[in-house]
Amino acid sequence: MEWGPLAWSLLSRVRQQSPLVQCITNFVSMDLMANVLLSAGASPAMIHSLEELPEFTPNAHALCINVGTLTSHWLPAMKAAASLAVQHGKPWVLDPACTELVDLRPTVIRGNGSEIMALADATVGTAKGVDSAHNSMDAVEAAKSLALSSGAVVAVTGAVDIITDGHRVAGAANGVALLQKITATGCSVTALIAAFVAVDPTHAFEATASALSIFGVAAEMGIEMAKGPASLRVHLIDSLYGIDEASVLSRVKITHMK
Amino acid sequence: MEWGPLAWSLLSRVRQQSPLVQCITNFVSMDLMANVLLSAGASPAMIHSLEELPEFTPNAHALCINVGTLTSHWLPAMKAAASLAVQHGKPWVLDPACTELVDLRPTVIRGNGSEIMALADATVGTAKGVDSAHNSMDAVEAAKSLALSSGAVVAVTGAVDIITDGHRVAGAANGVALLQKITATGCSVTALIAAFVAVDPTHAFEATASALSIFGVAAEMGIEMAKGPASLRVHLIDSLYGIDEASVLSRVKITHMK
Amino acid sequence: MEWGPLAWSLLSRVRQQSPLVQCITNFVSMDLMANVLLSAGASPAMIHSLEELPEFTPNAHALCINVGTLTSHWLPAMKAAASLAVQHGKPWVLDPACTELVDLRPTVIRGNGSEIMALADATVGTAKGVDSAHNSMDAVEAAKSLALSSGAVVAVTGAVDIITDGHRVAGAANGVALLQKITATGCSVTALIAAFVAVDPTHAFEATASALSIFGVAAEMGIEMAKGPASLRVHLIDSLYGIDEASVLSRVKITHMK
Repeated sequence: MEWGPLAWSLLSRVRQQSPLVQCITNFVSMDLMANVLLSAGASPAMIHSLEELPEFTPNAHALCINVGTLTSHWLPAMKAAASLAVQHGKPWVLDPACTELVDLRPTVIRGNGSEIMALADATVGTAKGVDSAHNSMDAVEAAKSLALSSGAVVAVTGAVDIITDGHRVAGAANGVALLQKITATGCSVTALIAAFVAVDPTHAFEATASALSIFGVAAEMGIEMAKGPASLRVHLIDSLYGIDEASVLSRVKITHMK
Repeated sequence: MEWGPLAWSLLSRVRQQSPLVQCITNFVSMDLMANVLLSAGASPAMIHSLEELPEFTPNAHALCINVGTLTSHWLPAMKAAASLAVQHGKPWVLDPACTELVDLRPTVIRGNGSEIMALADATVGTAKGVDSAHNSMDAVEAAKSLALSSGAVVAVTGAVDIITDGHRVAGAANGVALLQKITATGCSVTALIAAFVAVDPTHAFEATASALSIFGVAAEMGIEMAKGPASLRVHLIDSLYGIDEASVLSRVKITHMK
Repeated sequence: MEWGPLAWSLLSRVRQQSPLVQCITNFVSMDLMANVLLSAGASPAMIHSLEELPEFTPNAHALCINVGTLTSHWLPAMKAAASLAVQHGKPWVLDPACTELVDLRPTVIRGNGSEIMALADATVGTAKGVDSAHNSMDAVEAAKSLALSSGAVVAVTGAVDIITDGHRVAGAANGVALLQKITATGCSVTALIAAFVAVDPTHAFEATASALSIFGVAAEMGIEMAKGPASLRVHLIDSLYGIDEASVLSRVKITHMK
């Protein structure tokens, strides 16, 4: 498979179809998530009130739930939204911390190495000794187990992003370290995954790898103009908005690892 | 009437008087709204708790309510704030979605074509077949009906912004399309309208057209330096802060349409 | 005492130790506070739910409470977090408006002249005739009284920032006026104080003066590249991230005033 043309094709579909992506997330991350989605061509909607869900969620093209540091009183809305998404055949993406939501069959789960290992441990008991120093490579086996037990594509972000459906494993090697000095970049790439899965829900593995890689490419293009984390944030969004086919084809670095 | 000198005069008064503009809005839009108000010279206050309203709202110079995607549990605070504003003779501006609030006699109502047509339909039954593809020109008749029935100046934003008090109709043709790829630009121009109405409450029609045009001029100046939506957001605020008389006089494009 | 080397030493410790700084603040300021902390090398956490506090606050290295325009239903969480911080020997910093929280023995209190005079008046009855026109110099005596009665280091920010523990008084003269046209810069420097106090809790006076000065230096470096408030916000964060020893040593302007 040629990943560059595939990633470009998916980005083009996001730009053409402008999928409506509902996000349930915390207040710190709303701004960047919404603007990343807009710059990629998607339509963000930050809707989290229980009473709005029955009307809204069935009409969204994908749902993105970022559990993060949310106060637990939002958990009922998260569960209700995830249930509605599943019921109406909509893909949904989980940024983890919560085994209760894994049971609601997310299409994709994204986290860093420690988060995925903790979630795998809590769900299937495979990972022992969760440690925040673990990187994405250490979490490959945990991610595969979690993917098999949950039925989700699992993405472990790090220096190299790992994507697995339990059988296939891909690595996406785009991105820059300075992203860690900007709030909400993790949640924002999760939202971008939701936009990509929205336009090709039957190929969640490919859509997830493509979204991670293209976000990383935008960061690589952004850092060439940046002088620090705040200007990187500006140039990342500008680059995601303006990225063209040649840049995607020449820069996407995704490899099958198994 | 010369619109350029009028718009400059109103902006100068905002800078000199620094009106206190209370905003009730959602979390996604707070940041941009507050910084747009600050850069224009106004003093923003994001106050939405019911218990603070009786002390705060009567001392504000204008109130801006953005119903947007807010969860409905804020509706009581919106109603209370609007009532206090009316009771104390303060202008208030509504970014719509809600007929209940129209009954509280806003000074100005701002929305896009579809929103104004839906609101006119719900309020006076004039518009049929609301369609998100409608643009601001299609909504002129609906806007006039809504203005007459509500007593508010109605602004319909689009490629050309339409402003009407039911009798007069003006068009403001400043702005850039890329604003649509930034969150909260609609709410932010509504807040700017509130700042302009605050310094000249008896001329809400002129203040509304001037605010829409000057926001558009700032966007036009900003896009000359921008490389995408995130840098446009930065340069828009910088331009609004620094805009001078010559730029306003040469760039404001407001015309009476009737 | 040489303030330049001291300020550089404290910033270096923040970068090396990456202290976990818990912030309880309003929604408008979360974004800038978190990104200022990240750019300085600290680890921000915006945690304000009552149920998360008992597990979280004892593990944070410092706590920052910004009372600001928060709705009062967060006051129980603020009190609980402050009590936990005191109980576990963690420094905590208060951005004022609230005498109830002063009683919980903050390590540092930061406010502008009017805020500190109002707080001193409410707490120890020293300041009369609070007026928003008061500047930081007018508030020196009020700050000293408040420091003595509360046991906190008190910082009064203004054109010159005043820092006092009731006996010593220092002035920090870095910064630029345009910061006032950006939301949340006051709260953000309070968070930076928390990060500095976190790495040297027994020298809160020195840590507070150093944090105020370094934030001001970053603003001075930022404004050389800025064209208005929004680009200043970007360049301020970039500068704080990239600031080196030579810039700190040559630019820090702190003087003992008594």
